[in-house]
Amino acid sequence: MKLSALLMPTLREDPSEAEVVSHRLMLRAGMIRRLAAGIYELLPLGFRVIQKISNIIREEMNRAGAQELLLPALLPAELWRETGRWDVYGKELMRIEDRHEREFCLGPTHEEVITDLVRREVRSYRQLPLNLYQIQTKFRDEIRPRFGLMRGREFIMKDAYSFDRDAEGLEVSYRKMDEAYRRIFNRCGLKYKVVEADPGPIGGGFSQEFMVIAETGEDEIMHCDRCEYAASHEMARFKGKDQEKEKGTVPKIETVKTPGVKTIEQLQKFLKIDPKQMIKTLIHEVEGKPVAVLIRGDHGLNESRLKKLLKSENVKLAEPDFIKMATGAPVGFSGPVGLKNVKIIADRSVPGIHDGVTGANKEDAHITHVKYGRDYKADVVDDLRLAEEGDFCPSCDGGKLVMTRGIEVGHIFKLGTKYSEKMKATYLDESGRETVCVMGCYGIGVGRTAAATIEQSSDKDGIIWPAGIAPYHVVVAPVNFSEPEQREVAVEIYESLFESGIEVLLDDREGRIGARLKDIDLIGIPVKIIIGPKGLKENKVEIKLRAGGDVKLVEKTRALEEIRKILEHGE
Amino acid sequence: MKLSALLMPTLREDPSEAEVVSHRLMLRAGMIRRLAAGIYELLPLGFRVIQKISNIIREEMNRAGAQELLLPALLPAELWRETGRWDVYGKELMRIEDRHEREFCLGPTHEEVITDLVRREVRSYRQLPLNLYQIQTKFRDEIRPRFGLMRGREFIMKDAYSFDRDAEGLEVSYRKMDEAYRRIFNRCGLKYKVVEADPGPIGGGFSQEFMVIAETGEDEIMHCDRCEYAASHEMARFKGKDQEKEKGTVPKIETVKTPGVKTIEQLQKFLKIDPKQMIKTLIHEVEGKPVAVLIRGDHGLNESRLKKLLKSENVKLAEPDFIKMATGAPVGFSGPVGLKNVKIIADRSVPGIHDGVTGANKEDAHITHVKYGRDYKADVVDDLRLAEEGDFCPSCDGGKLVMTRGIEVGHIFKLGTKYSEKMKATYLDESGRETVCVMGCYGIGVGRTAAATIEQSSDKDGIIWPAGIAPYHVVVAPVNFSEPEQREVAVEIYESLFESGIEVLLDDREGRIGARLKDIDLIGIPVKIIIGPKGLKENKVEIKLRAGGDVKLVEKTRALEEIRKILEHGE
Repeated sequence: MKLSALLMPTLREDPSEAEVVSHRLMLRAGMIRRLAAGIYELLPLGFRVIQKISNIIREEMNRAGAQELLLPALLPAELWRETGRWDVYGKELMRIEDRHEREFCLGPTHEEVITDLVRREVRSYRQLPLNLYQIQTKFRDEIRPRFGLMRGREFIMKDAYSFDRDAEGLEVSYRKMDEAYRRIFNRCGLKYKVVEADPGPIGGGFSQEFMVIAETGEDEIMHCDRCEYAASHEMARFKGKDQEKEKGTVPKIETVKTPGVKTIEQLQKFLKIDPKQMIKTLIHEVEGKPVAVLIRGDHGLNESRLKKLLKSENVKLAEPDFIKMATGAPVGFSGPVGLKNVKIIADRSVPGIHDGVTGANKEDAHITHVKYGRDYKADVVDDLRLAEEGDFCPSCDGGKLVMTRGIEVGHIFKLGTKYSEKMKATYLDESGRETVCVMGCYGIGVGRTAAATIEQSSDKDGIIWPAGIAPYHVVVAPVNFSEPEQREVAVEIYESLFESGIEVLLDDREGRIGARLKDIDLIGIPVKIIIGPKGLKENKVEIKLRAGGDVKLVEKTRALEEIRKILEHGE
Repeated sequence: MKLSALLMPTLREDPSEAEVVSHRLMLRAGMIRRLAAGIYELLPLGFRVIQKISNIIREEMNRAGAQELLLPALLPAELWRETGRWDVYGKELMRIEDRHEREFCLGPTHEEVITDLVRREVRSYRQLPLNLYQIQTKFRDEIRPRFGLMRGREFIMKDAYSFDRDAEGLEVSYRKMDEAYRRIFNRCGLKYKVVEADPGPIGGGFSQEFMVIAETGEDEIMHCDRCEYAASHEMARFKGKDQEKEKGTVPKIETVKTPGVKTIEQLQKFLKIDPKQMIKTLIHEVEGKPVAVLIRGDHGLNESRLKKLLKSENVKLAEPDFIKMATGAPVGFSGPVGLKNVKIIADRSVPGIHDGVTGANKEDAHITHVKYGRDYKADVVDDLRLAEEGDFCPSCDGGKLVMTRGIEVGHIFKLGTKYSEKMKATYLDESGRETVCVMGCYGIGVGRTAAATIEQSSDKDGIIWPAGIAPYHVVVAPVNFSEPEQREVAVEIYESLFESGIEVLLDDREGRIGARLKDIDLIGIPVKIIIGPKGLKENKVEIKLRAGGDVKLVEKTRALEEIRKILEHGE
């Protein structure tokens, strides 16, 4: 392709709409353009990267025995009603009526549709296992679409669904996907961690996320500094640091006036105490009833563990009115002492608070010198706090947890029978008994993978594409294309590369070489061949890698050979 | 791929929902399944065919210098309002509101979006010409979706848009697309005609359709029996057959009672006259005013020519009340004699009707012995009838028009400045003058191309795929896979084919060979290698082509070589 003909509208200035590096650089490199909030046009260079990633996914999914198909985007409401998700999904689900006023949604995910297909077409154990996938456009009306391709309202996703005879079969299918995902992200040139994750609204018992490590990531990851253990902050387990038992008597409780002091920070300043002394009391509404959750002042509550402990999804921080009703006081002054008719659940660290401070259940008042067992008791004591840096790793001896940030590019789920049971996706086993299929599902955000790559791989000049997903491998750039000798050598090298299957651009544009190379560095092409008068005097051309390193002068006749070596080595 | 693992739910019986061969066979071969009216799931075999066609399109578009990109499916209403199509498109356009009540539609075509992109990104003549294309899912809420992938509500289309500096540039771009389309449909193995067509709601001055010849086609095509001339029935031009001038005096006009005789057929029976004697009078409402259109009884009116002649799109057959108002009589009794305040337009053949019959503009009455010039005159005489078989070809000497039926798989348009002018897609020319881009657009129905292929290529046993777009090239089918020698030879041949890049299936299923081969013929795989005990005694296997011909016995070690020869020859 000649650069003069390519639609590549690069920008000199940083566009104001972009907050993160990848968004900024994809706009500046002319790879994407915004059509509406969270809705992007993929321009030729952007489309090529998406195709590269899609093809890697396709090859690895096929290698793992999965079969590609294509499901519609317009999905009938009936199917979503069968699983109850028509109502659960809320405004994120884009709904539409056809000319006959039949209800449809634009698919944000395809569990219902694929389960419906399998229940219609699969009858016998002989047809299982089955792993079906598609690379398709999804729609989610995100409340806050942002960061370009990172969180869009229309985006390309690979989604796969496995159907097995039983749980052991699912284990095999899941492991195959785990392996395929590692190969995919390795081939994309990404540094990532596989973390235990919350299955969220997709559901199922167990899931793992593939997280690309990046400072700009939206997600917090806890991982061990010694072993492979990693989990989302919410899901991270830990072995607590040993707490020294404090001794000595605690004075009687005392109520102190704390006018307008509602938060831990305010209290810390006002009473000049350590947050470790505070008993944070978070009133929750659980299935309509009040529950007081006690956490040490320096800890964070793990909502997901709380839900698991209470065996309910219907758990939320209570509204002010509800708190007033349950404790008699406004928000900010709750505490466990004297609290009646409210279930109390405490994190394991709370009973160890020797001489504590907590709310008095009265406006503008707290209580000091509070002691567990003497002044209050919890109905349940369990692990409820979020893991913290320095906590011991739950899976090895002596490793400590470290926090880092990541971008979720893949998510794999053991769904079990959540959908197959509701939708009656069954098969007849060897003995002719009707049995429910056991499912897994496996997603990759294709556009997000491209964006995450840039978050990990760029410099002040622009994108640095790993060779595996670069839109083109090489640019041949003569210093002056209108100079006959340079042009002749450039075209010759360009054609030899093209004919040997290397994806190559020819910079035949007018203008100064400096400005043109700036463009080429911005779009991140891995290898440049620069052809100038000085080198040509010795029959040489310059080869320069985008990722850095010295300029290499090679005989012009050896350019192809040299490039081949670099690309083979690089991928 | 092993057939036992492939999701290929073939059906023994013809499904009742299918009216045409391609729909029936795609369902029976387990290639597609219906999710809702006009909305289909592409199962693995169906998806592969769609991919094959897409890749052929991609290669030929790239070869023609077009650049692939991907535009969104969710399109903001504002853009469609700019061209006025938001209102014009009617119910076929699927409209949706996002969570902020902003209006979008699901793209049925992308002229607005691409023109918007180009007006934002193209500034200089140096950036032109540009040809941008995508292969993408389109949405049209068809009032009568039918025939499977032939006319769906959600379907895959390749759409391309060219932008040129001027009309000469458009000619070049258009010709390149014409050539690319011919290569694409040739590679798909299709028999087709390129016909002059009506641009319809897409607009522009000139368009051609690529029509796959098939009896089940929805469109009528007129083509010359000698030269390359072909056009849609509506667009077909012709040189009329010479009409013999009849002589002799015509008696005075006479009114005859014709109670309840309203149609040409009824009149023909009632008066026992030749339809060639009848002056069919069709009252039209044109921009709110009545126009009487006269056509000989045996001819059909060409609505599209009438619109062109009247220079109006607002032309329709009048409603009964309007006819009564204009002529004083109910429907079925209109005629030109004595008609006042109504413009009269006659086809060129009408003045030649020697002794005619027409309506009396009175209920239950006609007039006989009507003569042009004496009893009535037209305000305009022009070509208004549809071409007929036997008419002389307009483009060669002595060729005659023949009618055939076709399926539109591609449509190319010279749009001119219809969109670029409205949306101000301009560039600065060499002299710095702002100039409007000249556009073309070019579509291919990908799923429809697959269906059209089957309409042209099937037999009683199933589909016969041309090798270029077959889901797999070869099936290796042992008579009994559990028999060790057969299995060993089968696996060996399968692997050797697989490794040399041939797309091959291994029939490892249980069951009788007869039933299994029925499945394989149904899905239309071009080549079968059958491995049975009789052949193996002489170290031979059978090679059989789906398209017919003799069974060939070859040495098992020569199978790969033989298959290679067949596939190279076949494509």
